[in-house]
Parts: sequence; C-alpha cells; structure tokens
Amino acid sequence: MITTTNPRTGATEATDLAVTSDAEVAAISHRAATAAKELAAIGRLRRADLLDAIAAALEADREVLIPTAMAETGLTDVRLNGELTRTVFQFQLFSEAVREGSFLEVAIDHAGTTPLGPGPDVRRLLVPLGAVAVFGSSNFPFAFSVPGGDTASALAAGNAVVAKAHSAHPLTCAAVFATMERACREFGAPDGTIGIVYGQKAGAALVAEPAISAVGFTGSLDTGKRLQAIIDMRDEPIPFYGELSSMNPLVITSAALLARSDEIATGLATSVIASSGQLCTKPGFAFIPTGELGDAFLTDLAAKFVEADAAVLLNERVHDSYAGARLRMSTESGVSVVAEGQAPGAEGFFVSPTILSVAASDLTPGHAEEAFGPLIMAVRYEGNSDLFAALENIPSSLTASIHYQTDDADFVRELVNVVKPRAGRLVFNGFPTGVRVSWAQHHGGPWPSTNTIHTSVGITAMRRFLRPLAWQDAPDFILPEELRDADSSVARRLDGILTLPK
Amino acid sequence: MITTTNPRTGATEATDLAVTSDAEVAAISHRAATAAKELAAIGRLRRADLLDAIAAALEADREVLIPTAMAETGLTDVRLNGELTRTVFQFQLFSEAVREGSFLEVAIDHAGTTPLGPGPDVRRLLVPLGAVAVFGSSNFPFAFSVPGGDTASALAAGNAVVAKAHSAHPLTCAAVFATMERACREFGAPDGTIGIVYGQKAGAALVAEPAISAVGFTGSLDTGKRLQAIIDMRDEPIPFYGELSSMNPLVITSAALLARSDEIATGLATSVIASSGQLCTKPGFAFIPTGELGDAFLTDLAAKFVEADAAVLLNERVHDSYAGARLRMSTESGVSVVAEGQAPGAEGFFVSPTILSVAASDLTPGHAEEAFGPLIMAVRYEGNSDLFAALENIPSSLTASIHYQTDDADFVRELVNVVKPRAGRLVFNGFPTGVRVSWAQHHGGPWPSTNTIHTSVGITAMRRFLRPLAWQDAPDFILPEELRDADSSVARRLDGILTLPK
Repeated sequence: MITTTNPRTGATEATDLAVTSDAEVAAISHRAATAAKELAAIGRLRRADLLDAIAAALEADREVLIPTAMAETGLTDVRLNGELTRTVFQFQLFSEAVREGSFLEVAIDHAGTTPLGPGPDVRRLLVPLGAVAVFGSSNFPFAFSVPGGDTASALAAGNAVVAKAHSAHPLTCAAVFATMERACREFGAPDGTIGIVYGQKAGAALVAEPAISAVGFTGSLDTGKRLQAIIDMRDEPIPFYGELSSMNPLVITSAALLARSDEIATGLATSVIASSGQLCTKPGFAFIPTGELGDAFLTDLAAKFVEADAAVLLNERVHDSYAGARLRMSTESGVSVVAEGQAPGAEGFFVSPTILSVAASDLTPGHAEEAFGPLIMAVRYEGNSDLFAALENIPSSLTASIHYQTDDADFVRELVNVVKPRAGRLVFNGFPTGVRVSWAQHHGGPWPSTNTIHTSVGITAMRRFLRPLAWQDAPDFILPEELRDADSSVARRLDGILTLPK
Repeated sequence: MITTTNPRTGATEATDLAVTSDAEVAAISHRAATAAKELAAIGRLRRADLLDAIAAALEADREVLIPTAMAETGLTDVRLNGELTRTVFQFQLFSEAVREGSFLEVAIDHAGTTPLGPGPDVRRLLVPLGAVAVFGSSNFPFAFSVPGGDTASALAAGNAVVAKAHSAHPLTCAAVFATMERACREFGAPDGTIGIVYGQKAGAALVAEPAISAVGFTGSLDTGKRLQAIIDMRDEPIPFYGELSSMNPLVITSAALLARSDEIATGLATSVIASSGQLCTKPGFAFIPTGELGDAFLTDLAAKFVEADAAVLLNERVHDSYAGARLRMSTESGVSVVAEGQAPGAEGFFVSPTILSVAASDLTPGHAEEAFGPLIMAVRYEGNSDLFAALENIPSSLTASIHYQTDDADFVRELVNVVKPRAGRLVFNGFPTGVRVSWAQHHGGPWPSTNTIHTSVGITAMRRFLRPLAWQDAPDFILPEELRDADSSVARRLDGILTLPK
C-alpha cells in the first residue's frame, strides 16, 4: 500500500495508489519501448508540439497540483508555484530546442578522396535510446520529479519515459502524471509515451527491465549506488545518469567583506535557509577569513539564523538523515555551534537552521558531509595555503562559488585553478542556488556530485538520452529528413564545415 | 620480463623492456595529471600544433616502425603502411578540429529576464578530464594502439595520456612511443604529456590509479569486463569507454544477387579475409536468400575461400580463441562447413579462412559468437519473417550492412527498422570494413559492441574525454578566451542562437 505523509504534522494516511507489480512494470516498460519507436517516427516538429501540449496542460492544472504538493512536501505556495513555472518553462525551452534541431548534431561527409583512398559517403545524427526510466528527487516534486528535467529532456530527445513515483510525494506524482497522460492522449501521442510505477520494489524492477534503455536519477549517493548495482547485474548494461551529492563550497575574501559584508550575509542566509536548505546546490561550506572582518560577518550571519523559523524537512528520512549529519559534523574535532534558529515543536519534521564553525586547518574529510537541510559549516581560513588545503578536503561538487573584489584578481585566478577540477559550475559574486534553465547551463560535476560527464539541467541534458547513428552510402529514401542533402532545416556539419540552417 | 613473439613462426624472444612496477605506474600517472593541467593552459592552437608535430614524427619514423610491427603482428607491409598513414591522418584531422574549435560547444547566455525572474550570465564550454589511460587493441598496432584514435582524441581534447603497451606488440609500442615522446620533447610539450606502462599487472594498476580520470579501451568483451570491475572498486569511479565486440550482420537480397552476384562475392571475400579477418567490423554473418541465386552466390564465395592462403593470426591467444569459436560454431545444430581455405603449416599461428552455413530458422543465440579471424557464417533465409527473426539473435553490433536494389525499397525500409536499434552504422551496398576517419563517422553501438553512447573513431571521439564546465557571472579576466564576448574565433551559441566564427 502506498501512503502519504504531511511533513508539517507527521500524519500518515493511506492512498488509493497500489504498489506496481513486477508484471505491470514489465508491461508498462514494453509499452514505452514500443511507443518510443513510434515517437521517433512522428518527427521532430510534431514532438516539439507534444512538449508544448504537456507544458500547457501542467499550467492549466496549476490549481490542483500546488495544494497536493504543499500537503506532501511542506514546501510553500510561493516556492511550489515558482517551481511549477520552471517545470512548464523547461518543456517550452526543450520544445524550442527540438524545433531548432542542432541537438541532432547532423554531420555529412560526402564521398570523396581521402589520404587513405576513396572514402564512402558517411552521415551521422543522434537518435533516441528508447524507453527511459526517471527517478525524481524528493525536494523538487515538479522540476526534478515526474514532469521534471529528466522527463522533459528524454521526451524531447524522442524517448518514451517511465517515471518511478517518489515515495515522499506519491499523490503529487499521480496528479501530475494524470495531467501529462491526458495531454499525451489528447495530443494523439503514442500509447505508452509516458508511464509511472509506484513502490521501491517496482523501482528496482524498472531498472532491471530489459525494455528500459537508460535511467535518469536525482537523489542520494546511497540510493544511486543501489540502482547502479542493479544495473550492473543486467545482461545488457544501460547508461545510468545520477545527480548524487554536493557540498558546494563558497569562498569569501576579506576585500569582499570590506565592500559588502551585509549583502553577502543576507544572500548567504537566504541561499542556505530557503526551501529549508533542501537544494542540491545549497552552499554547505562557507570559507570565511579569520580576523575582525570575518568575525563581524559571522556574527551578522548568526543573527539571521537565530531569528529564522524552524524549517520543515520533506520527510522523516530527510529529517533523520539531516539530524545524523548535523550530529556527526558538530561533534567532529574543532567544530563549534555558532548559531541555531528557532527550536522545532513536537509535531512534524522540523529542524533549526544551524551554523557550525571550524578552523580551515582543522578541516578533515570527516567533516565534509552533505547535510541536506538548513545547515552551513563556516570554515575560517588564515591565508591562501590553508584555504587551498582545506578545499581539497571537500568532495567534488556541482558548484563552487567565490565572493571577491577586483583587487583580488590574482587570488581568484589561483583559487579557480584549485576548484575548477572539483566543480561543474563556478559562481562569481553570487550564490549557487537558483539554477538557471538555459542553453549554457551545466548541472553536473566530478564524482560524487554526478557519475557521468553530462548535465541534468539545461538543453544539453538531452545528449544523455541520444546515441549517434551513422549511415554509409544510404539512399535518400532511407535517410532521416535532416540527413538529406536537400534538407537545410537544421545546422549541419558539411564535409567538416559547420553551416547554419537556411 | 616482456617478451615478443613472431606470429608467423611462433618464436618468442626476450626484450629489453621491463614490467612497470606499481610505484612507476603511480609516478607516471601523477606526471600525466600534472601535465594535463599545463596542457589545458597552453591553449587550443598550440595544442593543434602539437598534434601536427606528433603526426610528422610518426611519418618520419615510418621506416623504423613498419618492420617492427610486421615482425610482431604478422600483418603485411602494405596493410601496415596504410594503417600508419591512417594514424598520421588521425592526428592531422584532430588538429584541424582543435583549430576549428566547435568541439568546445561554447554557449553563452547573457544575464536577462526569464520566466523565473532575473537570470544570471551563464557560460559553458567543455574542458579536458585530466590523465587518460589508453588500452589499444592487438589488431591495429598503430591506429588503435599507443598512437591510435583514443590517444589522438584524448590529446586533442587537452588531456595527457598514459598508454598500456599491448602484450602482442610491445616492441612496436616502445618504438612508436619513443617517436611520440621525442616529438613532444622537441615541441616543448609538458613533461608527462604521454606515458607508457608495460605488463598486465601494470594495466590493472593504471585503471585503479586515482590520478587517472578516464579509460579508453579497444579489445575483447572479457578484458573489458575485467577492467570495468577494477574501476568499480575505485573510490572515485571514472568513465570507461570500451569498444568490445561486434558480429556485423550483412544482408543480401535476391535482387542484389541478380544484379551483381560476382561483385558482392568478391567484396565480401575481401572484407572477411583481409587482415586475416581480424577487424572489429568484419562481417561475421551474411544473410543470403535460399534458392538458386543464393546457392550460386555461395558456391562462388566458397571458391574464393578455398583458394585463399592460410591466414596468420596476431598471436596465440587470438589463434586459440578463434579456433575455439570456430569449433563451437561449426558443431552447433544445423551448421555445415561450406568452404575452407589452404591448410595451415605446423609453424606459427595460421588458420584456414572458413565459411560455415546455417538455415535462418535454425539460428539461435548460441550460434552468434564473434570469431575474430577469417570466418563467416552464411545464414540462408526464406523470406522476411525468418530473416528478421534470425537478425534478432545477432547481438547488437558496430555495423549492419544491406546489399539491395532500388526495387527493394520497401524491404529496405522494413529491414532498417529491424537493425537500426541494434547497430551504430548502417552500410548500404558496401562493406563495413575500412572505417572512414572523418567528422561524421560513428564507431560504436549498443551493448555489447560498446558500453557507452560515444564513438571511438571520428572527430566526435573527443567528446569522451571532455566534461562541461559552466561559469556564472564570471569576470572576463577569469574566463577562457573562447567564452569572452569579444572572442569570436569559434562557433558559439549566443542566447540560444548558433553563430559561426567571424
């Protein structure tokens, strides 16, 4: 039986939803694999229309979806409305990219003489993988869940999607799936274009299912490893794209504090406390100079945390995991508690926003844990050498941020050299939360932040669910439209020269 | 001790080469990781010059390299000269692509209003991974070994490379490495830009080494799985790109036989027998219609095989593995031996080119083995349904080929739908061997042909050894040149619009 829990009260209720049986998982996956073949055949522009139709349906059902998600996640009205807007926008942006067509990476090498003798005509573009399984995260019931970026990018690339409903917001998953399924049906999309399964066992069966061609996952490192282990047991391994863990170090220079200490403290407090700190890009470690400027900054930051309301976490697992990380980190050698927000009441999954502090020279890999919630570790550094050494103890992350002033240019260059190999996005005089959904975005990074060289946010997220296919000396009638000489609807590389569409 | 064996005689001799110790592997890998940082800093155009310098050095040492490779591989003068030409060309083509620069996938989204409020400035390009380990194959001592496509693409992308010398041609590896190292030194490339290790144990240590950031591999499925298992034990998993196995089905229609039976037989015999059949794209299964046309074709093909000289294989392992596969396949239910070439003498690792035959309706997954050598299985089909069913028993491959006539258009469409999900390159009225090195090439395919969605031949092979990095609100002085507004030297996506360099 599938249950739903209100994190603000802790009350759990039964739902009408049932755990999906292994046989149903297989049937849904096979339907998706068949749908994927049909989806590939309807063509690029029609697929773009489908994405627009899904976006419109999500927008139309806003009034139903928001309250459902509020009750299951404890996230606020404002936050969830913003998230749904982002989710709708994601579908629209992918639609735009599908129309634009350069994601196909069309390349045509005409037959000709090469240093190795006559070369055949070779043409290449990217084709969809098939049926993609999507495991969303608890912290974004829309933008990283059933209708999230993995689903949108997989559909945009021409795949069918089977989503695993998240156990922490099953009713939201069911509601949003109903919206999307209705949109697909009314649009006339192939039966099975999207599917959904419920229950942990069904999730395991889904990644083991031969009809599934790839998996997108956003969640914890532990769960990611468990899913990877199931994939490793398959006869045919498939790509697993995991967005797993991130500490997001943020460095502040003395010059930056001298110029705008207040502004940074306000921005940092918001970045850590908003959404109860449950963002994969939440800054977890702030590197603050020792001395008066740093002391004053930390006092200011502490005041903001002390005033902060107790923060509700998404569910019991997140709550307990956060409590464990907070306890371990606060009892590590050299760590002190600088500030705690309002104390939680007896009901629900609330915690106090917290600042811990440690000297950079005391920081060890043991301190470097991801506390998924409103906690930040202030790491006090003396100079470049202990700062750089301490940064090496922070695992690679989705982001690294730097608050600096123009005078710090040499330092910034050095610092960037230190953090560049250990991050996927470098943020300057800003905060890593609030990931812009755009063409240039990259949301990924070296292990353990993600497990591949790909992104899960932004247009290039599509690349995960595509594979190249080459045609050699193929007749026009068999070539995909975009590979025919006469078609110039998308950007193409013609005999090595990139050419724009006409 | 490292030994070398002449496959034409079977004689084994000691070499002066020593197995690389674990400590040496670590030192070489760390030197490579340091070199990679310096290589990334010398800039794109200088790196292109380095590739050209390596190409020139390989060309200059041709007279030394060819005889060494001949003695160790049994491959002919003509074949090895062609292969070295290809190897030189690969470096030159990658140099061209590095200069051209669109492999960086530069994208710039200027700050602006978005449906989610103000969006920051976000810029993205691809950066190298670090030190890449390369495991070459026995069958291409140049083009897929120490100086092969993996090495060239990894260097082009800005990585350093540590090659594992192949046990079947260690002296060739040493000679070619000396050539490349000299080129790097004379060019002034960072110390450690290329490295080499000897011995199976050193290879295992190399993929386990924390300083290594990715692995390129061309070889057997079994060895690939063993390396993957070592990677799975690492604290930080890294990308493993394996080109592993391929059966390369080839379908011939009756209409094609009616029009040009002789031509197809001649081409097919060459494609199977050349290089002693030791090509990953060798057609392993030819689907030939039943009836008189097919019978006549097979008789013609058999005559060519019967006349063929005994073929020398690369080494004892390849010989024994081929002999095992041939034995198993020829004793599978329903299989007959149609033709055998000249019998091997007592010396060396020679085998007879062989045609086996089976009815399509008798073909099971048990028949579908990769016999790495001059063997082809003729599969006789009655009509579309038993052809399509039989094709489902052939594992996914690097290629699938079709010999057809214009009248077969409907059949070709149907057939392409069957093989498209199971191949990386579709060849029409041609043969899959002789992989063109070009921009549009794709050399990869669904498992078990490769284990990822990437290619190991052609310009886009570089993508394997790059990861995206995003800069948010970064000042000009810290941005890579190609990400600055003022730089228009490479193709860029500006606010979603693809623009050509000026």
